[in-house]
Amino acid sequence: MPAPIITLTTDFGSHGPYVAAMKGIILGIHPDARLVDVSHEIAPQNMREAAFCLTQITACFAAGTIHLVVVDPGVGTDRRLVCVRTQGQLFLAPDNGVLSWVARGRSDVEWWEISAARFWRQPVSATFHGRDILAPVAAHLSLGVPPSALGPAVADGVTLRWPAPRARADGIDGELIIADRFGNLISNISESDLASRGRECAAMRVRCGGCDAIPLVRTYGDCPEGTVLALVGSSRLLEIAVRNGSAAAKLAAGPGTPVRVTW
Amino acid sequence: MPAPIITLTTDFGSHGPYVAAMKGIILGIHPDARLVDVSHEIAPQNMREAAFCLTQITACFAAGTIHLVVVDPGVGTDRRLVCVRTQGQLFLAPDNGVLSWVARGRSDVEWWEISAARFWRQPVSATFHGRDILAPVAAHLSLGVPPSALGPAVADGVTLRWPAPRARADGIDGELIIADRFGNLISNISESDLASRGRECAAMRVRCGGCDAIPLVRTYGDCPEGTVLALVGSSRLLEIAVRNGSAAAKLAAGPGTPVRVTW
Amino acid sequence: MPAPIITLTTDFGSHGPYVAAMKGIILGIHPDARLVDVSHEIAPQNMREAAFCLTQITACFAAGTIHLVVVDPGVGTDRRLVCVRTQGQLFLAPDNGVLSWVARGRSDVEWWEISAARFWRQPVSATFHGRDILAPVAAHLSLGVPPSALGPAVADGVTLRWPAPRARADGIDGELIIADRFGNLISNISESDLASRGRECAAMRVRCGGCDAIPLVRTYGDCPEGTVLALVGSSRLLEIAVRNGSAAAKLAAGPGTPVRVTW
Repeated sequence: MPAPIITLTTDFGSHGPYVAAMKGIILGIHPDARLVDVSHEIAPQNMREAAFCLTQITACFAAGTIHLVVVDPGVGTDRRLVCVRTQGQLFLAPDNGVLSWVARGRSDVEWWEISAARFWRQPVSATFHGRDILAPVAAHLSLGVPPSALGPAVADGVTLRWPAPRARADGIDGELIIADRFGNLISNISESDLASRGRECAAMRVRCGGCDAIPLVRTYGDCPEGTVLALVGSSRLLEIAVRNGSAAAKLAAGPGTPVRVTW
Repeated sequence: MPAPIITLTTDFGSHGPYVAAMKGIILGIHPDARLVDVSHEIAPQNMREAAFCLTQITACFAAGTIHLVVVDPGVGTDRRLVCVRTQGQLFLAPDNGVLSWVARGRSDVEWWEISAARFWRQPVSATFHGRDILAPVAAHLSLGVPPSALGPAVADGVTLRWPAPRARADGIDGELIIADRFGNLISNISESDLASRGRECAAMRVRCGGCDAIPLVRTYGDCPEGTVLALVGSSRLLEIAVRNGSAAAKLAAGPGTPVRVTW
Repeated sequence: MPAPIITLTTDFGSHGPYVAAMKGIILGIHPDARLVDVSHEIAPQNMREAAFCLTQITACFAAGTIHLVVVDPGVGTDRRLVCVRTQGQLFLAPDNGVLSWVARGRSDVEWWEISAARFWRQPVSATFHGRDILAPVAAHLSLGVPPSALGPAVADGVTLRWPAPRARADGIDGELIIADRFGNLISNISESDLASRGRECAAMRVRCGGCDAIPLVRTYGDCPEGTVLALVGSSRLLEIAVRNGSAAAKLAAGPGTPVRVTW
């Protein structure tokens, strides 16, 4: 049986030694662990970006996968570290809400505090718990240590507010969550939010960032190049995009910008 | 026998979840697949950059390697996806020409359409065929599925124009293809183009980007630091470089800029 | 027994084919080698950055790890390539000093020249020794070739000057070595330099980049957000930081800037 996958999501950047230090620690404990980088370019301390990133990849990974997340504005304070199990996968992170979106609305979620120091690297530094606590804990989990051995169950894990869209009589109000590298602008309005209102997509228009009547289409090919369009993207969320262009550059819009769907 | 290598070349950027999503899908189907990132920083929709990148790495990989390439300005249209076999290696990509340079001038090239949906992830999104089609297909190929099982043979794969250099009475005219991170400017004039004319390199001069008499040397050490020089680089193509500096910054030159060799 | 880890540290950038070319060569010789990227974003030809990076990761990797380093301002000259063994690990690089900091002050250091061409890829290009010499040599070492087979012992490996801090009657003078992605400024003053003077940290103040009385604290949580602080970081060196901010942006400071500790 192949060793579990351990994914890594951090705001450490790709140009320094911090990520490699964590990998060295993991592979020292479990030489066969399979490591997958998710992103090390999360904006510093940007928990929303990391939390959203996790929601985009979980369905693509097998049960048993361990996700190690280090975006940690509270490092060097007494914030807890936690382990969350959901969808048959384990997530390790500071208890700052970064794991709450992947657990949102699910009934299969368990939380544990990471407090059993016997799984940690010693001595533990005050400022690099990714290397000294989370990396060795991930490696031990991948060897079969159950998450309940890490510490007591937690009932009050920190939750990051998910900006829920609001229904209106003739539409839905939401906001942008993130921009991807192409300048596609991903919103908090899901395919099921749109479907639940029983309207045809062809009759919907989207307003965002100064653009008033963005058509809602099925795919890029439904519009000529350069047109601002909206579609349900691969994340099953409403996205504003420009075919072979950047909606982020064309609209005055980014995370937090209101999005209004009308029909 | 070790599992085949699957390389990944995309324009997805390194800071988002898209690449990790593809890796999760691949490892879910073939847990022992060995993944190698080539680049995820191909400029968005820049097929020439990706096509050239593939020509630079193929000779370094073993027979049986599978190269997955997602640079896809036609995503969401009815463009095909294709599999190409050449040099004992397999290449998967949208049929937009991105695989044509690695196949250029070779007699061992076979093309297949990727149309057999039984190897795909379901449901297939309209906008992320890298995750839903190419990644699972690469994983199945790495398990031994023959490329002929993916779909019918293709006789008319899309070709990207290779800007062939032109011989003149007293030299060769070409153009720059790409700049690397150091600012080295790589042209379309090959070592064999230079050799075929029976002239001594020492007698050749190169004109490019406002510089008139760039010497053609064997290696960086043949010139003082800061000098603009030309040499046959590790890709066996004529490069313009500045020893421990950036030719791209020093000359007004980039992809498409004419290069003239004279003797 | 798992195959050795081979780490890669280069200034090649993450957006081109050079790193993948090296990986293809390594995996062609040793298919089970475990590859870990340290950084490919070392500033071009910046040996200090690469040398420091190695000092930050060595303690995290197991004995037997092989570190391949390509930061090579002398490529294309007759500079040597060397292999260094220390701390039970092997390091391969051009002989330009980039390996000297990881060996600094240690008694277990051995150096060999890399001159036995039977371990190299042929033909060897004039400009890409990372691909043609260091990558295949790393792969052969990972298969069990002893470093003494690579070439003769070297007694005069090139050393990069480590800027040693200087003791004063009422403190220590040092300088900044590097800034990390968060804008933390890491100096050459070590925890033991501070401890050796028998003073309490609480009584120390740090001066750097126009800031006169930076408090020396144990961890970020000891100061409010936005405060410039100093602490002994995870590398056991004195760092100047801003909690959830960037000291590099806030101070006029970077590598080479003087740091003065007083009490």
